Amino acid sequence: MRKLDAKAIEHIALGAALLGTGGGGDPYLGKLMALQAIEKYGPVTLLEPDEVPDDALIVPTAMMGAPVVLVEKIPNGQEFVRVFEGLERFLGKKIFATIPIEAGGVNSMIPIAVAAQLGIPLIDADGMGRAFPELQMVTYHLDGISASPMVLSDEKGNNVILETISNTWAENLARVATITMGASAMISIYSMTGKQLKQSAIKNIMTFSERIGKIIKEARDNGENPIKELLDVTKGYELFKGKIEDVLRELKGGFSLGTAKLEGLEEYKNENVEIKFQNENLIALKDGQVLASVPDLICIVDLETSTPITTEALKYGRRVLVLAIPCDPKWRTPKGIETVGPRYFGYDLDYVPIEELMKGEMK
Amino acid sequence: MRKLDAKAIEHIALGAALLGTGGGGDPYLGKLMALQAIEKYGPVTLLEPDEVPDDALIVPTAMMGAPVVLVEKIPNGQEFVRVFEGLERFLGKKIFATIPIEAGGVNSMIPIAVAAQLGIPLIDADGMGRAFPELQMVTYHLDGISASPMVLSDEKGNNVILETISNTWAENLARVATITMGASAMISIYSMTGKQLKQSAIKNIMTFSERIGKIIKEARDNGENPIKELLDVTKGYELFKGKIEDVLRELKGGFSLGTAKLEGLEEYKNENVEIKFQNENLIALKDGQVLASVPDLICIVDLETSTPITTEALKYGRRVLVLAIPCDPKWRTPKGIETVGPRYFGYDLDYVPIEELMKGEMK
Repeated sequence: MRKLDAKAIEHIALGAALLGTGGGGDPYLGKLMALQAIEKYGPVTLLEPDEVPDDALIVPTAMMGAPVVLVEKIPNGQEFVRVFEGLERFLGKKIFATIPIEAGGVNSMIPIAVAAQLGIPLIDADGMGRAFPELQMVTYHLDGISASPMVLSDEKGNNVILETISNTWAENLARVATITMGASAMISIYSMTGKQLKQSAIKNIMTFSERIGKIIKEARDNGENPIKELLDVTKGYELFKGKIEDVLRELKGGFSLGTAKLEGLEEYKNENVEIKFQNENLIALKDGQVLASVPDLICIVDLETSTPITTEALKYGRRVLVLAIPCDPKWRTPKGIETVGPRYFGYDLDYVPIEELMKGEMK
Repeated sequence: MRKLDAKAIEHIALGAALLGTGGGGDPYLGKLMALQAIEKYGPVTLLEPDEVPDDALIVPTAMMGAPVVLVEKIPNGQEFVRVFEGLERFLGKKIFATIPIEAGGVNSMIPIAVAAQLGIPLIDADGMGRAFPELQMVTYHLDGISASPMVLSDEKGNNVILETISNTWAENLARVATITMGASAMISIYSMTGKQLKQSAIKNIMTFSERIGKIIKEARDNGENPIKELLDVTKGYELFKGKIEDVLRELKGGFSLGTAKLEGLEEYKNENVEIKFQNENLIALKDGQVLASVPDLICIVDLETSTPITTEALKYGRRVLVLAIPCDPKWRTPKGIETVGPRYFGYDLDYVPIEELMKGEMK
């Protein structure tokens, strides 16, 4: 158990944006929401999963939708609490604590704001160990925990409660509701017991995000390059250095879909890489060959400052570094790969772990 | 107070299909659902609105979506009760009785099935006095009653509960949920007190439907033509006799949209009429001139048998009679016309009551 203060929040937002692999929301926006909440309501207690009673009721909260929209349609803060209390009222039970559903610049911050405002603890774990675009893409789903009942709330004051026969139906119905609400909504989902949490969640995500954020921030402040340390800490790989030549994007089915085209710099000169994304970066291809793919993390950072770049911030001319980080082992099981592997996203290729892809590719 | 038996149900289904003005569902399907329910659970008690206590909780039930879909995606009956009990559980109060939201071959029958199965009374009133395609098109809306909380249930077992800031938001969110559920869903909506019911509902709709159905049925059995009596009872007008030359239709935004083109027969020879519909018949045009428009009722019946024809049953070659019936006066108020007049449906013309349009048009 420890308290999260403003400095911790700064670091978590930055580190979670890296683990968000392009999605999970803009860290600047997320940070503001969390900082505002702790300024008003005081610091938040962060619990280890092992500190949670087995029978406690835990409810993740998050923003659902296309992150690109959130930048222009800023939450007013009330919907975080409304969505959470909506589920509490529906369940008729007191919720013990909240928890992020994914790591990301916004989605690691919303649970902090909820915890601060309601005076409940936050748990140091999530359901992805990164960010993914759809609701069933959580370790909770792999372990048979139901997404429903779930609640969606918008900034206007509308609430939608879903009781579905499967997590895919929760995704389908929540997605169209989110689109109708203006392409973003707050959600509370996957209510679970402390016991289920300990079995299913990916532990330590806030602390891990904080550590990553601290490395990036301190290097930036000292004019140093944090990449070597980042790769050590995340067990990651450098994939590519390049300049963004083109970004094709569309808002489709409530998602930000697109491709970023990169032209190599320095030792990657004359090489070309494409990165396909659906809110999050899914696949990195060099001349049609897979450099890395979901569920492993593909992270784009600024070449000079190592600041993580979300997919909505990809712009022509930016000079970037592309990293790959091995995903949590839970995603490398058959059900994990079926749920979030390349084929689920429509790519006709088998998942190969980044460690194997990198053999013989090291520069 | 009286009991509805199988014979009454036959007549109501037939008469409500006429008042459904092309929408409200197929009466054969509707009748089967209601007959099956009363066979299993016994006859249903029909109450006059004045027999309902002022503080009683009343909840309308209906099918939402494109009627054309319901023909192939037949409800299993459990969703009627699930949707109703879903709202009862959410409200935490016992529901005293149910009531149709509109008149129609299916939507006058579903509340009978619900009442039979739950052993509660049915009220002889509705919110339209006809059928309309959208949720806010009810007299309850004109009187400021909230559509939400509302519940949608599908035949697979999914439930959606909506709490919205306006009835238009209820329509928007319920429509996308309905489309996602497969273009049809059962709904419970506009929960109200007995007092609100007495002020807002259009009374006597079941008895009126029954009377119309009985006229059509008995004339058919005796080989007579019921049109004169039908026009007397409904204060309606004959608009046209014709053969269907073409039906253009599409499923769009969860609605059955289209145009039926009719070529005149007998005294209407060499005349052409077009009828535009969105689930229900909206406008009848002769050479671009309005013959009748919403909110007045435009009803198409078989030329020989006077059986009402729903928009999904409009087929090339059918010989039909087109009738127009004045709507309830509540629809002729400024808010009524704003809610269901021609302009709401995208037609650039003012509503003129059928009585005025018919002056000088009588043949």
